[in-house]
Amino acid sequence: MNIDMIDAAAARLKGHIRRTPLLNSPFLDEIAGRRVLVKAECLQVTGSFKGRGGWSAVSALDPDTCAHGVIAFSSGNHAQGVAFAARSFGAPAVIIMPSDAPRAKIDGTRALGAEVVLYDRANEDRDAIGARLADERGLTLIKPFDEPQVIAGQGTCGLEIAEQAAEMGVERGDMLVCCGGGGFTSGIALALEARAPGLRVRPVEPEHYDDVARSLASGRIETNRRAPGGLCDAIVTPRPGDLTFPIMSRLCGPGLVVTEDEAQRAMALAFRYLRVVAEPGGAVALAAALFHPGEVEGEAVIVTISGGNVDAGLFAQTLTRFSA
Amino acid sequence: MNIDMIDAAAARLKGHIRRTPLLNSPFLDEIAGRRVLVKAECLQVTGSFKGRGGWSAVSALDPDTCAHGVIAFSSGNHAQGVAFAARSFGAPAVIIMPSDAPRAKIDGTRALGAEVVLYDRANEDRDAIGARLADERGLTLIKPFDEPQVIAGQGTCGLEIAEQAAEMGVERGDMLVCCGGGGFTSGIALALEARAPGLRVRPVEPEHYDDVARSLASGRIETNRRAPGGLCDAIVTPRPGDLTFPIMSRLCGPGLVVTEDEAQRAMALAFRYLRVVAEPGGAVALAAALFHPGEVEGEAVIVTISGGNVDAGLFAQTLTRFSA
Repeated sequence: MNIDMIDAAAARLKGHIRRTPLLNSPFLDEIAGRRVLVKAECLQVTGSFKGRGGWSAVSALDPDTCAHGVIAFSSGNHAQGVAFAARSFGAPAVIIMPSDAPRAKIDGTRALGAEVVLYDRANEDRDAIGARLADERGLTLIKPFDEPQVIAGQGTCGLEIAEQAAEMGVERGDMLVCCGGGGFTSGIALALEARAPGLRVRPVEPEHYDDVARSLASGRIETNRRAPGGLCDAIVTPRPGDLTFPIMSRLCGPGLVVTEDEAQRAMALAFRYLRVVAEPGGAVALAAALFHPGEVEGEAVIVTISGGNVDAGLFAQTLTRFSA
Repeated sequence: MNIDMIDAAAARLKGHIRRTPLLNSPFLDEIAGRRVLVKAECLQVTGSFKGRGGWSAVSALDPDTCAHGVIAFSSGNHAQGVAFAARSFGAPAVIIMPSDAPRAKIDGTRALGAEVVLYDRANEDRDAIGARLADERGLTLIKPFDEPQVIAGQGTCGLEIAEQAAEMGVERGDMLVCCGGGGFTSGIALALEARAPGLRVRPVEPEHYDDVARSLASGRIETNRRAPGGLCDAIVTPRPGDLTFPIMSRLCGPGLVVTEDEAQRAMALAFRYLRVVAEPGGAVALAAALFHPGEVEGEAVIVTISGGNVDAGLFAQTLTRFSA
């Protein structure tokens, strides 16, 4: 993995993936006690940064392999990223999703033309289901994070952040990234190492699913004790990846952890002051900047809103409960 | 009014006002039956296009006049635009707002450092209140739309649309603009006349407040019979402006009218497919594109989401009632 792969992915993504804005609000600055710049990947095609990795991985396949089709496991955002890219390349896509994934994500993935196969998280083995389908149909597996071209695709977000932060006069500070398996975090870290070395990448996770923070602290891969689930489904994974962990270990500062309530409060503030829709997992980095200022360093902090695919009912409840 | 004034405003706005994205979604295209490009001015500083006009007008004042301060009448978006600009220039700002304006807008205006004076729409004469304050304190009135530098500022949005639509391969089609007094509509129309003459600007209004559509149809200024109010407060004015109407009359196609329910359905779809927050008045152009396709011409349509300053309670109700 290196910056050249990220630049190459950026060239493939051009014209297909959006350059999302780096937003800010004086009201958020006041809450955080420092400048807060928000990379709004909820405005990305498919509603999350996963559009980048999906496009990068599918566009890197040789045409014959691509024509046979692709398969992915996902609670929803990677699903839509892969489905979107596959449709654009005319490739069949099969997505294995947990049956309790958010409705908006299941519907969105189907509407993008993918075949969605639902499985029961508690009683079925998704890997076995996936292996059988891949074998029967000659599909290529697009892993959600532990895959070089996916990391390179997510890293294109880091290239944009480096440019946009410099335009806004920010060249030093913490860069907080919503973190699941580490594809987004490690991709951004590689991009910033080359293009904005004054920004220090730090993963942010929801409590009970802080495998990356604990792994960075101990220096070896730690796993979550809880089964995947919770409000922040988009960024909950059992453990960091074999490819992503060494990158994060080399480049990232300590991880931060927020509660689900803090993530929802951040969603309500992003609604009010940025007028964007964040999903719970997509709001954890903003929550860390706003509600854990003592754990952040520097005069400015940059955060990702990694996605905005949230069911209307949950969003309405969040506003009702957490708006001042 | 000419394109040079808009270019000059764009130069003054640079670095202070955001270049907002032109968003799209395959799902919205499907509903509308044509490509739909959405200029998301809800992502503008202060949450609406009014940040442009406010900055343009305040930045055009001579320093001595500016130092005495400014005054504006507004239900909220122009208020915040003027307050934001005044604060940046160190000028006092007094904003006269109706006491029934959305809470988010009153609070937002105060938080930007302006002195907010509330009046009762039914029983008080806001013009008299404003004239007295302006006289006592030497404040300069910044009119919400019938003011050349405000129109020039709103027109900078049109410059961006011309460039962004061309990048996306759209050079012909209807350009639907959420319309109150016509400052935004006429500013965009002037910009597109010079930079994207294949795009035809058309105002969109809520039913019962279709003064501009009727004025364009009759060829002379018509007034609304209902007193201002309703969900679409941001774009409800008694009549088109003396400066804006001749520009719209020369450059615009026929107006479109949507219901409040249609505006709220469009808000729910913008939430789901674009992950942005639209206020009711800011969603009327998208509503026209989605629910009145037979009244629109061309293979592609461009719409503005003009603002996103909406109370959390109303947004939550909208999602609950109008999400599929």
